[in-house]
Amino acid sequence: MKIALAQINTVIGDFNSNINKIISFSDEALKNGCDLCIFPEMSVSGYPPRDFLENNYFVEENLKAINKLTSSICGIAVIFGAFIKNTRDWGKPLVNAALFAENGILSGTQEKKLLPTYDIFDELRYFEPGIKGDPLIFKGKTIGLTVCEDIWYDNVCLPRRLYGVDPICDLMKNTPDFFVNISSSPYELSKYDVRKKLLVNHAKNTGKIFIYVNNVGGKDSLVFDGNSLVISPEAEILAHAKAFEEDLIYFDLSSKKGDTRINPSETEWSLLQALSLCLRDYTKSCGFTKAVIGLSGGIDSALTATIARIALGRENVLGVIMPSPFTSQESIIDAQELAKKLGISVTTIPITPMYGSYLDAFSRVFQKVDIDLTTENLQARIRGNILMAISNKMGHLVLSTGNKSEMAVGYCTLYGDLVGGFALLSDIPKTMVYKIARYINQEIENFIPERCFAKAPSAELRPDQKDEDDLPPYNILDQILYLFIEKGLSAGEIILNGFEAGVVKKVINLVRKSEYKRQQAPIGPKVTSKAFGYGRRYPLSHNFREFDRDLE
Amino acid sequence: MKIALAQINTVIGDFNSNINKIISFSDEALKNGCDLCIFPEMSVSGYPPRDFLENNYFVEENLKAINKLTSSICGIAVIFGAFIKNTRDWGKPLVNAALFAENGILSGTQEKKLLPTYDIFDELRYFEPGIKGDPLIFKGKTIGLTVCEDIWYDNVCLPRRLYGVDPICDLMKNTPDFFVNISSSPYELSKYDVRKKLLVNHAKNTGKIFIYVNNVGGKDSLVFDGNSLVISPEAEILAHAKAFEEDLIYFDLSSKKGDTRINPSETEWSLLQALSLCLRDYTKSCGFTKAVIGLSGGIDSALTATIARIALGRENVLGVIMPSPFTSQESIIDAQELAKKLGISVTTIPITPMYGSYLDAFSRVFQKVDIDLTTENLQARIRGNILMAISNKMGHLVLSTGNKSEMAVGYCTLYGDLVGGFALLSDIPKTMVYKIARYINQEIENFIPERCFAKAPSAELRPDQKDEDDLPPYNILDQILYLFIEKGLSAGEIILNGFEAGVVKKVINLVRKSEYKRQQAPIGPKVTSKAFGYGRRYPLSHNFREFDRDLE
Repeated sequence: MKIALAQINTVIGDFNSNINKIISFSDEALKNGCDLCIFPEMSVSGYPPRDFLENNYFVEENLKAINKLTSSICGIAVIFGAFIKNTRDWGKPLVNAALFAENGILSGTQEKKLLPTYDIFDELRYFEPGIKGDPLIFKGKTIGLTVCEDIWYDNVCLPRRLYGVDPICDLMKNTPDFFVNISSSPYELSKYDVRKKLLVNHAKNTGKIFIYVNNVGGKDSLVFDGNSLVISPEAEILAHAKAFEEDLIYFDLSSKKGDTRINPSETEWSLLQALSLCLRDYTKSCGFTKAVIGLSGGIDSALTATIARIALGRENVLGVIMPSPFTSQESIIDAQELAKKLGISVTTIPITPMYGSYLDAFSRVFQKVDIDLTTENLQARIRGNILMAISNKMGHLVLSTGNKSEMAVGYCTLYGDLVGGFALLSDIPKTMVYKIARYINQEIENFIPERCFAKAPSAELRPDQKDEDDLPPYNILDQILYLFIEKGLSAGEIILNGFEAGVVKKVINLVRKSEYKRQQAPIGPKVTSKAFGYGRRYPLSHNFREFDRDLE
Repeated sequence: MKIALAQINTVIGDFNSNINKIISFSDEALKNGCDLCIFPEMSVSGYPPRDFLENNYFVEENLKAINKLTSSICGIAVIFGAFIKNTRDWGKPLVNAALFAENGILSGTQEKKLLPTYDIFDELRYFEPGIKGDPLIFKGKTIGLTVCEDIWYDNVCLPRRLYGVDPICDLMKNTPDFFVNISSSPYELSKYDVRKKLLVNHAKNTGKIFIYVNNVGGKDSLVFDGNSLVISPEAEILAHAKAFEEDLIYFDLSSKKGDTRINPSETEWSLLQALSLCLRDYTKSCGFTKAVIGLSGGIDSALTATIARIALGRENVLGVIMPSPFTSQESIIDAQELAKKLGISVTTIPITPMYGSYLDAFSRVFQKVDIDLTTENLQARIRGNILMAISNKMGHLVLSTGNKSEMAVGYCTLYGDLVGGFALLSDIPKTMVYKIARYINQEIENFIPERCFAKAPSAELRPDQKDEDDLPPYNILDQILYLFIEKGLSAGEIILNGFEAGVVKKVINLVRKSEYKRQQAPIGPKVTSKAFGYGRRYPLSHNFREFDRDLE
């Protein structure tokens, strides 16, 4: 039996284009002699459609698309993901399922049993846990079919058993010849390794081949990395698709041989791919072609502009330099040099006149107008206004440039540098910003001026300001933030990891105090295990004391 | 047996003050001869703590607080809500529960079985559905104890059975003498009637008295309305607490008599209470005392300022008038008159100089600077900057003034009139804004100038602009929005309700196109069945066609 793994990039709610893509990939697989073509979870509607799932018309269009797709498939069997109606008279009205279609007929349904409801996942909001699973026999082979989370049940790789049911164990009762899992599993740092370990364990424990087909593409803040693969009970990778790109690969069940693409393994490479793909898909899906970025001469805006240039093309990126009285000459030169190296358009709009007109107005209202937080924020907000005016006038998507470290501690101005449609680096810690920038300069092209790496980070909103006047050094800050935000450790636990109590307290207080800024921030690609955005849900008003009395 | 219903307002994460409040209310009940004092769902931590539930230190502090509370209670039994650890070795690590404590000992636990996971509820994100329910016998009476959603299982009042388990039916096996439900059930229009009908049905069907104790207070965008009550199997209200205020009422099980507060029944009254309470609690919990509001002379800012004055006191509200070249003299006069009638401070900052300085800069960049969307947004953004500068300088909370109708169709400027910490009217349709304003003028004090009601709504961002040049009349718009957003009807279904196809399409397109603005908007009180905010989760990038071909 020859099997195709069709790792496709779908658009949420674009039923016609999604099913046309499924049809064209399966036609291609048929031409190449395949018997079966497998598509990712929820390929018909795109994943995740979120509250569109509560919209009757969306549900109807989805069911129509499933019928249309099924009747269009001919000469090859397909497995694809789609949500369908829950046939019970109670529970959530939908179930998430893998469907098997052959000769114009839907002849197998496997409902997803384990529904992730944590971090960015809300599946129990929409779906009832599946119970139905038709025994699936195709060309004499029994297929153990599962959907995404169904394989995330494990006592070895995962910290806690979240579910009372083990779908793989249940399916073993049918003595399957091989397993298939269709997924929409988003990228995050190190997740590929966990996923592979999980598949290896399942393959070893069951003694069966596992075929894993994952979604690919950016969907708002999620980026699916593809990396579909086939693994043997001996933990050998028998086939492997591309990372971060659509792909169609073939695997022969008899010879146990398949296509194997080699993907680079560097962290920086995968982050760069994730950010580029997510930006490209977001821009396109929202109907933009061009992006505009405020260039400060610093490393964050340099990296943002560079990735935009890589993802969208040099002709589609506009840089804007907006010097204030506190902007150094070096910053202007570095920003200009960056734009030149990237080959992007650049325009300069000094903010001093606007800044002066506000100060003048404020001097009549406030008793004193010093250089303080108010005037610092004001400069950032004038720049925000200018970028938004360019967006309004020219139709460019504004990319905000803040990194995760800044976002975490609120070292950013709401309605200022936080304006924009997409915050490309919002899940990239500052220390990683440097690493990706260095990787690009070394491996792709020497785009980013050396001084952007060398100089001390500064917001340049007051004379001689340096980030480290207000914050701990970034290498310390990023470690504390990792333990607090990603690992969920408490202040006491972080201090036990060797960090100074005062610094830890300061950082945690800053994180809590700036929750309101993040709540109004643009979305950006999630690449870590805990990004800001809808996977992290904190109240704004509370009075939780983060520290033991001993620490105070 | 004399029972106290203690309807308390807790603060999320403020364990000490929450348990002190429980202790002081139960002391008071004891003094008044009560045997049992009942508190709302999750009173120890406050509800909803959201992702604090994933924070180990928060969980530990909560468990400590439960122990401290239990050992402090003496001479009276209490039922209170708190989350506890899931004792199974799989599933979500916590369960939501009602706890029974007496003589310093925790002697009964009833885990919540039905976990709402829709709209603003995410309980399956944190909790495992309960299984444990100790038979609860107190002074010879068997109590049927349930938590909030456990009673929201019904074939009469609710459109679909969401759950496969009926907790009331299960508890009937113990032949309870009466039922208790502890809730954190948020206010929304008409919900009180549904809740009462549900309780009446349960009391009738079981033939038992139902004691219902609800949370009260504002928690970010949620406002809990109290309205705790006791209902007889004959559908008689035997006791009733205040709406929108803390309360402690008594009910005698033998005589079937209890305290009964009379609350006004007008919709406008309840909305006004909900908005005031939510604003007051949000302001206080976030550490603010004062609010600042841009006064345009229109009805939205007039109502916002009026409610702020009612909720926070006249000395804590600052109005800012920010005329542009397009602001009419009438608007300035109306804003001044409003401020005078409210007795609040007011300051005037014309935006013309700033506006001019931007236009000057733009004229060097853009080929043409006409009065267009760019310059309209610019004016709104200059005003946003001024309000934020006042907030930075003086520590006031900025209240944004947009109503739900504007927010729905995106008739508002991101980073302009959308700036602020709290969007008081963001779930109030424009037609309801007028009704609440009229109600205040008639029933409380004649605060709002008559011309604010009479004149045609206008953003005054270009010469002679009227909202109805860009939008359908608000009475039509609000009906379409209600059917689309609250009722979830499709375009076709709305047209079948008698609305013009072209208008319906226009409105739906505007709603979809402006999703990105709402995603970055401040939070505001949820008062309808579907508010913008975290109870409504749509992707930003998608390509869903809302209409049949027939409609296009």
